[in-house]
Amino acid sequence: MLIWAADRPEREALVLPAGVEIATVPDRPGEHPDLTRVEVLVPPYKSRQVLDALTGMSRLRLVQALESGVEWLLPHVPDAVSVCNSRGAHDAAVAEWVVGVVLAIQRRLPEHLDAQRREQWRDVVAGGEWRPPYAGDLEGSTVLIVGHGSIGAAVERRLQPFGVVFLRVARREREGVEPVSALSELVPAADVLVLLAPLTAATTGMIDADLLGAMRPGALFVNAGRGALVDQAALTEALHEGRIRAAIDVTDPEPLPAGDRLWSAPNLLLTPHMAGDTPRRYRRSWQLVGEQVARLLDGRPLVNVIAR
Amino acid sequence: MLIWAADRPEREALVLPAGVEIATVPDRPGEHPDLTRVEVLVPPYKSRQVLDALTGMSRLRLVQALESGVEWLLPHVPDAVSVCNSRGAHDAAVAEWVVGVVLAIQRRLPEHLDAQRREQWRDVVAGGEWRPPYAGDLEGSTVLIVGHGSIGAAVERRLQPFGVVFLRVARREREGVEPVSALSELVPAADVLVLLAPLTAATTGMIDADLLGAMRPGALFVNAGRGALVDQAALTEALHEGRIRAAIDVTDPEPLPAGDRLWSAPNLLLTPHMAGDTPRRYRRSWQLVGEQVARLLDGRPLVNVIAR
Repeated sequence: MLIWAADRPEREALVLPAGVEIATVPDRPGEHPDLTRVEVLVPPYKSRQVLDALTGMSRLRLVQALESGVEWLLPHVPDAVSVCNSRGAHDAAVAEWVVGVVLAIQRRLPEHLDAQRREQWRDVVAGGEWRPPYAGDLEGSTVLIVGHGSIGAAVERRLQPFGVVFLRVARREREGVEPVSALSELVPAADVLVLLAPLTAATTGMIDADLLGAMRPGALFVNAGRGALVDQAALTEALHEGRIRAAIDVTDPEPLPAGDRLWSAPNLLLTPHMAGDTPRRYRRSWQLVGEQVARLLDGRPLVNVIAR
Repeated sequence: MLIWAADRPEREALVLPAGVEIATVPDRPGEHPDLTRVEVLVPPYKSRQVLDALTGMSRLRLVQALESGVEWLLPHVPDAVSVCNSRGAHDAAVAEWVVGVVLAIQRRLPEHLDAQRREQWRDVVAGGEWRPPYAGDLEGSTVLIVGHGSIGAAVERRLQPFGVVFLRVARREREGVEPVSALSELVPAADVLVLLAPLTAATTGMIDADLLGAMRPGALFVNAGRGALVDQAALTEALHEGRIRAAIDVTDPEPLPAGDRLWSAPNLLLTPHMAGDTPRRYRRSWQLVGEQVARLLDGRPLVNVIAR
């Protein structure tokens, strides 16, 4: 069996059954292994080369993504091939990012860091006066989690001791979790909106200008899902008008183009799609790859199957 | 009864019993009320004017600080006067700051913010290569809390769901809490050292060059206590040598003087003594002032008494 795999960090955590070979997907177009021998593909995220090579992989049985989002790949994979994601592997990493950016924005760490770079002590937050809003409290806030799956649960577990109130939205309505149709009612009640929904045809642009406009003045919009879940032009406008604050790990497109007005938006913390990128998360993803290969060889059912 | 009180945020949360008057300590030297009438003093932190005026307050009965640290004031207050702090009022605010800066540093938010200001996407963290250390995990870390009182407990409660291991040090040894003499053994085991000790003659300079030198390479030093707890020259050196990382809310002196080498230290997040400054924390402190005044008038015992 041949695995064609991305050269992503912590790959030494991948343990393969005896006799399984591995070849590396090069970062730039270059030499391929014999594509007809590839049975398992572990693609680099949004790899053009992988998309181009897919048709040549006649014996492909499994595409195992290192990410949770596989929307870029799914339409291109033949029906007979199993597509699995890394659900669960980066719950902790993304949850740490979410709690980290929420606290960073509430406590105005970006403004303080800017002041630090100017070697300026205090008196900077509210234009020369040490007055409210000097900083906010997370305690007592209402946090709305949109797309409440395994990452949402991981975020909620970590925010629990901070004394916040949770509102939850997911595709599948259940006890304590409202349907997506309730969003317009719930958004005005939230101090923090955490977007974690998967990107599908139904969720593309789900956070539109109306919902952004319904957010409380100064409320915090957090996106650890996908950029295309949001009307990015409306988000950029809301930030430039000073109506809301935001911390986002994803944009549409990525990288965010040079000169885009989002770069210079005030009250924005922007990270380059790295919320899930930590050593432990990659180790878990590679361990999952090894387990999936063992399942394939043993004829046991795969886990995290998104499509077959 | 006359209260002479700082003009600090959220003072509208102060509810006073009938007949109690309040005068404001001006931010700059200026008009005083009749100091001989002042029975309760709520001083601005490190106010020179208040220190100068203390000898004139012949009827002073209570100094109620809005902070937890009263070391700047204590030696100047006559023995017959009760000095009380705001212990408990800002536990939540300081704990949120501590968790926020720990996650911000682990997830390299300062580096990402610098890149954002340059409108630069990814590829910035490790010098042009997307390689470790792209970010760290908090999960699995060992967190050493030095000065484990009510704020330490509040920090620990909030870090609990992140899957970290706690080590604890306090003046008073007890179950699960080591004495200060154990520090040199515990420091090398910590990924994160959170300093929350009060400033006393015994704790001044307690984090010295030896302890800083014993920290793991790349470990994170967090100070939400007082600047003088630390050998600041040694901390500055350790940072400039790239040996450790730090997030500090306090320096010695404050403000940190212009041109001090600490300003330009790498891997440092510096905030201007604001970890405890949030609206809820001030409301709680002012509520405490009102309760203490009522206790005085009713002849009931005061709370949070540091000295009398």
